[in-house]
Amino acid sequence: MGFGAILVVGQKISLLGMGIVDLKKESDYAVKLKLIFERTQQLVDDFKPDQFAVEAPFYGKNVQSMLKLGRAQGVTMAAALMRDIPIAEYSPRKIKQSITGSGAASKEQVAAMLQSIVGFSEQPRFLDATDGLAAAVCHHFQSSSAVPKGGKKNWGDFIRQNPGRVR
Amino acid sequence: MGFGAILVVGQKISLLGMGIVDLKKESDYAVKLKLIFERTQQLVDDFKPDQFAVEAPFYGKNVQSMLKLGRAQGVTMAAALMRDIPIAEYSPRKIKQSITGSGAASKEQVAAMLQSIVGFSEQPRFLDATDGLAAAVCHHFQSSSAVPKGGKKNWGDFIRQNPGRVR
Repeated sequence: MGFGAILVVGQKISLLGMGIVDLKKESDYAVKLKLIFERTQQLVDDFKPDQFAVEAPFYGKNVQSMLKLGRAQGVTMAAALMRDIPIAEYSPRKIKQSITGSGAASKEQVAAMLQSIVGFSEQPRFLDATDGLAAAVCHHFQSSSAVPKGGKKNWGDFIRQNPGRVR
Repeated sequence: MGFGAILVVGQKISLLGMGIVDLKKESDYAVKLKLIFERTQQLVDDFKPDQFAVEAPFYGKNVQSMLKLGRAQGVTMAAALMRDIPIAEYSPRKIKQSITGSGAASKEQVAAMLQSIVGFSEQPRFLDATDGLAAAVCHHFQSSSAVPKGGKKNWGDFIRQNPGRVR
């Protein structure tokens, strides 16, 4: 499981942190879920995010792996829900498209584009870490572009969905 | 989402509570997840269970509904993980079989059998509530019958899985 935390001030995006929760060492499924939950709680405590975005795959998995993925996501979402952090979700295609302009971009292409957008210099140790970061950056692009460019959303929706952003 | 809480003393099973978390009134998906999480936390606080069992469907759903179901389960599991309560899972077929003797029993048959096992007099208002209770009773049958009858498990496993039950 990859995660990424960004800070947005005006037009500037800075990287607060990125990484993975390494579950390979742990074989017990319940312990894995517990690890994910504890680690996400810790990340929420460390970064105190205002917004939370997850990747929501829509195909390409069998029902069993989807149930397991859903549970893992549910556990991370619980950590956000505990702190009343709004949760957004994006398909992998939407995330890739939002970052590279192409919904069919490779993991490497997304990582390279993120490197230039967020401006981190070192190649991340695990490509999975950029998955989490990609969801965060996509969410920023989607929520900041929705109002001026979109035309699909109206101010009423925006204010309702972003009470903290209207002063 | 149905839930049921039982107390087991010796051979006797008593019903502590059963019910549903009614999500139909709420259309927003994130709010639904939050409701499930808060309600499960409350149930865990109220009943202080030593064990937690969930139904894990293995087929008959599409990947999208499986992801949503997984997230809902993940959120309830987080409430258990927070309190270090061990989680068990059973397929719907296993639950039906454990309670009625037939993996193909109807919801109504399971409910009627539960009524006689747990001894509640009133017909529950929602059949979904008996789903949660069924998982709890199945878990009790499975964990208590494994050693004397099973032959499939050994004492080493039992002691490892049930440290609190060996004195």
